[in-house]
Amino acid sequence: MRVRLTDFYPRSLLRRKLEFFLEEDVGFGDFYTDPFVDRRVEGRILSKDEGLLCGVDVAAEVFFLVDEECEVERLKEDGDEVQRGDLVLRVRGTGRLLTGEKVALNLLGRMSGVATHTRALVRRHKTMILDTRKTTPGLRLFEKYAVLVGGGRNHRFTLSHSLMLKENHLAVGGGVEECVEAVEEVAPFYSVVEVEAKSPEVFREALKHADVVMLDNFGERARVLLEREREEVERRGALVEVSGGVDLSSPPMDWADAVSTSAMITKSRWLDFSMEFVPLKEGGS
Amino acid sequence: MRVRLTDFYPRSLLRRKLEFFLEEDVGFGDFYTDPFVDRRVEGRILSKDEGLLCGVDVAAEVFFLVDEECEVERLKEDGDEVQRGDLVLRVRGTGRLLTGEKVALNLLGRMSGVATHTRALVRRHKTMILDTRKTTPGLRLFEKYAVLVGGGRNHRFTLSHSLMLKENHLAVGGGVEECVEAVEEVAPFYSVVEVEAKSPEVFREALKHADVVMLDNFGERARVLLEREREEVERRGALVEVSGGVDLSSPPMDWADAVSTSAMITKSRWLDFSMEFVPLKEGGS
Amino acid sequence: MRVRLTDFYPRSLLRRKLEFFLEEDVGFGDFYTDPFVDRRVEGRILSKDEGLLCGVDVAAEVFFLVDEECEVERLKEDGDEVQRGDLVLRVRGTGRLLTGEKVALNLLGRMSGVATHTRALVRRHKTMILDTRKTTPGLRLFEKYAVLVGGGRNHRFTLSHSLMLKENHLAVGGGVEECVEAVEEVAPFYSVVEVEAKSPEVFREALKHADVVMLDNFGERARVLLEREREEVERRGALVEVSGGVDLSSPPMDWADAVSTSAMITKSRWLDFSMEFVPLKEGGS
Amino acid sequence: MRVRLTDFYPRSLLRRKLEFFLEEDVGFGDFYTDPFVDRRVEGRILSKDEGLLCGVDVAAEVFFLVDEECEVERLKEDGDEVQRGDLVLRVRGTGRLLTGEKVALNLLGRMSGVATHTRALVRRHKTMILDTRKTTPGLRLFEKYAVLVGGGRNHRFTLSHSLMLKENHLAVGGGVEECVEAVEEVAPFYSVVEVEAKSPEVFREALKHADVVMLDNFGERARVLLEREREEVERRGALVEVSGGVDLSSPPMDWADAVSTSAMITKSRWLDFSMEFVPLKEGGS
Amino acid sequence: MRVRLTDFYPRSLLRRKLEFFLEEDVGFGDFYTDPFVDRRVEGRILSKDEGLLCGVDVAAEVFFLVDEECEVERLKEDGDEVQRGDLVLRVRGTGRLLTGEKVALNLLGRMSGVATHTRALVRRHKTMILDTRKTTPGLRLFEKYAVLVGGGRNHRFTLSHSLMLKENHLAVGGGVEECVEAVEEVAPFYSVVEVEAKSPEVFREALKHADVVMLDNFGERARVLLEREREEVERRGALVEVSGGVDLSSPPMDWADAVSTSAMITKSRWLDFSMEFVPLKEGGS
Amino acid sequence: MRVRLTDFYPRSLLRRKLEFFLEEDVGFGDFYTDPFVDRRVEGRILSKDEGLLCGVDVAAEVFFLVDEECEVERLKEDGDEVQRGDLVLRVRGTGRLLTGEKVALNLLGRMSGVATHTRALVRRHKTMILDTRKTTPGLRLFEKYAVLVGGGRNHRFTLSHSLMLKENHLAVGGGVEECVEAVEEVAPFYSVVEVEAKSPEVFREALKHADVVMLDNFGERARVLLEREREEVERRGALVEVSGGVDLSSPPMDWADAVSTSAMITKSRWLDFSMEFVPLKEGGS
Repeated sequence: MRVRLTDFYPRSLLRRKLEFFLEEDVGFGDFYTDPFVDRRVEGRILSKDEGLLCGVDVAAEVFFLVDEECEVERLKEDGDEVQRGDLVLRVRGTGRLLTGEKVALNLLGRMSGVATHTRALVRRHKTMILDTRKTTPGLRLFEKYAVLVGGGRNHRFTLSHSLMLKENHLAVGGGVEECVEAVEEVAPFYSVVEVEAKSPEVFREALKHADVVMLDNFGERARVLLEREREEVERRGALVEVSGGVDLSSPPMDWADAVSTSAMITKSRWLDFSMEFVPLKEGGS
Repeated sequence: MRVRLTDFYPRSLLRRKLEFFLEEDVGFGDFYTDPFVDRRVEGRILSKDEGLLCGVDVAAEVFFLVDEECEVERLKEDGDEVQRGDLVLRVRGTGRLLTGEKVALNLLGRMSGVATHTRALVRRHKTMILDTRKTTPGLRLFEKYAVLVGGGRNHRFTLSHSLMLKENHLAVGGGVEECVEAVEEVAPFYSVVEVEAKSPEVFREALKHADVVMLDNFGERARVLLEREREEVERRGALVEVSGGVDLSSPPMDWADAVSTSAMITKSRWLDFSMEFVPLKEGGS
Repeated sequence: MRVRLTDFYPRSLLRRKLEFFLEEDVGFGDFYTDPFVDRRVEGRILSKDEGLLCGVDVAAEVFFLVDEECEVERLKEDGDEVQRGDLVLRVRGTGRLLTGEKVALNLLGRMSGVATHTRALVRRHKTMILDTRKTTPGLRLFEKYAVLVGGGRNHRFTLSHSLMLKENHLAVGGGVEECVEAVEEVAPFYSVVEVEAKSPEVFREALKHADVVMLDNFGERARVLLEREREEVERRGALVEVSGGVDLSSPPMDWADAVSTSAMITKSRWLDFSMEFVPLKEGGS
Repeated sequence: MRVRLTDFYPRSLLRRKLEFFLEEDVGFGDFYTDPFVDRRVEGRILSKDEGLLCGVDVAAEVFFLVDEECEVERLKEDGDEVQRGDLVLRVRGTGRLLTGEKVALNLLGRMSGVATHTRALVRRHKTMILDTRKTTPGLRLFEKYAVLVGGGRNHRFTLSHSLMLKENHLAVGGGVEECVEAVEEVAPFYSVVEVEAKSPEVFREALKHADVVMLDNFGERARVLLEREREEVERRGALVEVSGGVDLSSPPMDWADAVSTSAMITKSRWLDFSMEFVPLKEGGS
Repeated sequence: MRVRLTDFYPRSLLRRKLEFFLEEDVGFGDFYTDPFVDRRVEGRILSKDEGLLCGVDVAAEVFFLVDEECEVERLKEDGDEVQRGDLVLRVRGTGRLLTGEKVALNLLGRMSGVATHTRALVRRHKTMILDTRKTTPGLRLFEKYAVLVGGGRNHRFTLSHSLMLKENHLAVGGGVEECVEAVEEVAPFYSVVEVEAKSPEVFREALKHADVVMLDNFGERARVLLEREREEVERRGALVEVSGGVDLSSPPMDWADAVSTSAMITKSRWLDFSMEFVPLKEGGS
Repeated sequence: MRVRLTDFYPRSLLRRKLEFFLEEDVGFGDFYTDPFVDRRVEGRILSKDEGLLCGVDVAAEVFFLVDEECEVERLKEDGDEVQRGDLVLRVRGTGRLLTGEKVALNLLGRMSGVATHTRALVRRHKTMILDTRKTTPGLRLFEKYAVLVGGGRNHRFTLSHSLMLKENHLAVGGGVEECVEAVEEVAPFYSVVEVEAKSPEVFREALKHADVVMLDNFGERARVLLEREREEVERRGALVEVSGGVDLSSPPMDWADAVSTSAMITKSRWLDFSMEFVPLKEGGS
């Protein structure tokens, strides 16, 4: 299936975020485009890397912010494979387009990097790959979307998005039951309840109260533990999620219902794109 | 030398940025701390990685945003080495502190990752390492600061920060001389003039007009070219910067005046930190 | 159980929202406090109504915004009953406190009105009362919190908070199964799936795919329908939520698992509070 | 006379406010429209209530924010009567339109509720109905406009909008004369001076210094008092405004020059509207 | 009488505006204070000019934004005379204080310039001096306050602050009566009605409908015209305001009730202040 | 050469700033255009002054914000001479255009005033005229641009834009060498180093370490000092900038490389423009 950011996030709100990024990069002005700002140019984004593309619509929107009458032609879409040398996007307009280059490429490079890494995780672990709240501050919408494009799925968007008790809550708040009950009194009513377990005892306790149990940092022992408790897990209909340092070098986790990892955020590199501009002959648009 | 973000960036403005990040993570509330919000707790940030620390003051500021009366004890400072297991920061206050965990750790992990990678680049290339405008949108202040902590130096902060002509400007705007002259009429008066050269011809032309010439994507040929033109370079007192895919696997670039690279941004991984909270006995603060 | 906004929502972020409200009310200044701005005064918020109190901490925070050294004494807390004439809050500081009166009272009046109405709904229907996304634009945090204080629980905070298919989605998107499958590919992984049913057919179809089925606008027939399908409902472990014009005049819905209604938002009146200020003798603080 | 928000408030500024509301509702995205986002749909807002319509242009603007190329057809205008079943607005565009439904309906429901209640107050009291600064925080522009649509008029927009001395100012600041003189030195020069009187003494004193005297909370005695002082009132050319708990159950106040009340804000219910979407046949737009 | 911005405008809101100004000046950091950021320093603002001081509290607030624990000592207050060499404000804290110098001085210089010019206008024309909406965009609060300090008074703060019909309204909207009636239906109820007259005919017409008539650009003829209509003016109790290029070179306008002019904004120069910093001996605070 | 703000600063970002200014002026609405908001009008901006025009595009953008379908015709461009009576801009659209008048004229008047004064400085001193960081808070982009239009050039945009050591830094931080070295460790790598000298000793010291030496407040002695050190200056290739109270009354500074002054900001008056609106016959657009 194809997913596209502007299918579920309004362009007007997207532009607000991009304007903020553009302001960060422009400062008091881009004096370098000044001499040829009225010439018609064509810009081309090329892939210098191979991987999974993500961020084409976002890049296009950046160009609209610097030249609202530019024409964008997408040669590739989010979710497409790219090879070195592939032409990704072509944009025609005035020399003002050069001002948008860096913000467009930065988002494209970061988002494609996250998407590409996510897909590698999906392929290795052959189970559901989930992200976490470990995302670059200010960029959560874009990075979570890139996870979707890479074939992963999103865990919580914010602290208010689902009910998850972690080690630290249990350490401070008491036992699993006590904590779940306390939190269930204030959290949104239809919350999936997830409990993080760092010991077999908490795992067994969590199974009694949670819809999802997350086995954190068990490493290889997670599988053993799960086998031992499989019957109870099935009786409860609970999902078992594994987390804690899972990445591309971990053994495949296909026996878990899901793996949550921040590896696509913290261990991915950006995909490399370049942009070249050429002048257009007058009337050549 | 020691560098510290709050030495040159006002804390009041820093807080505005952090509030924005916190809002992104909190959404409509952190219901999970609710049951023990009035208990006194101690939180400890531990390194699970080795590298160069960056972001301690920023993390501390996040905790002040969630519990303005907390007490922060820094065990390490930005620019310190950390080993696995090192205690970095201790904070005491109410259970509200848990709400700040993720934003604090995300910034610490990202910033330390950038600083650590920068230092590795400095050690490999034994010349000045410069960053670029290829930074994560919205995070430029933090990432540029991490480059400083890692022993690199900052290139332009924004398009308005210095005069730099790139390939695309020359492609659209004409020859080096024409472009420099045109831009010099509008750019800030005391601008260092830098020209990006992708061919020996442009390099020689640039030497006549620029304070800094950037040899982009020449690879090994850059050194040869530079040798050939050394006399002219010295006569002009120009600086020669090398760029284009330089990273930790490139041969050492100690013969260049500076290397500009986005490798610390696009190819670094985050440093891994964890945070654990324990309840404090009443009166135990 | 007691719930308090500042237990789960950071005060720093709360102040950002309140500053925005204060700016709306102050405009270019409150010239009326000018003549006595340096006199010490005591302000008292009194209830002129009976109901359930909500918004005391929010009101206190407003006073801190206009006089950061004021002392606030809470005589009542959120969730307390108030009677006509009850003293709710006492604040001492400078004459600047008068500037905060209206924003503080407006929030207190609205939030207490929502809380009071919610409690009445809870008492009438003797089942879980849920709110909806029908909240006053800009005030969702405050109104959803008031629902909690009134003994209700929160349904979705935003469109991104859970997976809910409504009549309009089915009308445009096709059958229940098709829609659920399509949406499940992009929505957060651990989403409770809810489907709104406006006909017995959709109800039966929804039972096959959803964790929660919402019977919308069935009126009295909802109960009959539910009886007829009870076996299937139980077999599936689905929750049945009733909605559609349920308010204080509807027959008790104690047979449903939950009732979702916007009545506390759209049909409640504000609780009435007044504030009086008296000068304090010098040294009288 | 017809009044329309976009006749006196710029659409560009209106959109800024609506984007803020939309962001509150959307969060990280509306995944539910995703599957049919490219289908052409028609949405119809229907009245499920009777009353005075207010907010049609605002609703239309919300739809432009989610689908900038949608076509809106207004079947009714602000200030029109609506009956149950009336079609209010028709909008055609892509499936993205569904994302705007709630913000559009919430504003329409609230604003129409305020307008409808205002008109009822106007009809009962047969004198000028004024609002107050008791408005929902963040929504003052919209609620004050709804009062206009309902046939009322606006009192102060902000504390800086006119000169009004209230009981609390007199309590803290001294006598009427002293207060008026002090405030007149800083308030805008051409301010109508209004004094709130809660006792016959203050009323008589206020008559000497104010253009408008507000009799607050006198109930039936207000009329008697006014009769007794009519000669002086006329000699001074002062206006007499009555306030304090005036609502639809109060005896008609047609003997006063104006009645200021927050009843349309605090005691009104929202008008009920629904929106239904249907797919359009391709080419059917 | 003494007027002080923080007496009628909340400091929390003032800080929001100043943070915005500080951000404009700081950019990505003030690297120049970095080397001595931990030394204790004393900064002194000195007048290099003579005039009327305005902006001391605003400057102090800027220093709190860069060093929240600094100690400010005001040697002069807003509304005081300053001579060349006068010490205005002393602030002690860390080297971070240097970062605030420019924003503080810029506001102080501009505001004192406006206040000084206003006072000169007051002294020349010996009547009420009013400002206009011709103020520096973004600075209206500060400039209007400076007019107050200079002994003038404020005309409208915003378009929504009072009812004023200008030449352009009459040109487009029709006659005075028609326009006043139309506008009175939507403007706030207690608005002083002012009409701008550019011809004797409009003046006479305006006298029938307005509380204030503004004679615009009549020059010397204004006085003659006023004499001729004095009886009618008095009968109506109307105020006559003169405007149009009135400045320090105009003949005294003491025969008018008020003069509105933007001269203090458009023709004033800034007062000149300097700031010097000295290191404090340790323990010397 | 011609310079135009929208050639180097994106219109989308410009609009964000202008919306903020418009909001300041509009408040809760412009009720005065309400009666004729649907009539077609033509507005004309006329010069009532002579000088150098600056701000035409900015004014045009303001009109787009109040009537997005208006047609703007520029009769003059930024950098053109204007005489009394010159028609500058013509705009056709609805009566909503009147709402934008003041913000458009305020920016045009201020910016043209700064440009005109800058040109006079350029003509008098016959050397490069530079601005400073002494600009109106919030308006730096606009004022710095006006300096460009006037034939001057921009000095630093923000504290982060170049490396400049001032008297206060030396006073607190120690000698020139020590300070330059310390700052060079954190400031952007390619910074022009400028040192402010207030004594001949510092001047000579600065010559050893700086690219630019600024002679501050030397008055006539600056020239003498420069003559004495000319050889060293030339040997170092340093630029000598003069500052400190230089304005239109100072003797010509043509012997300096550059003069930095805030005179165009602090001593300029606004240019005077007026705007008149006339109704258009229907079909007359």
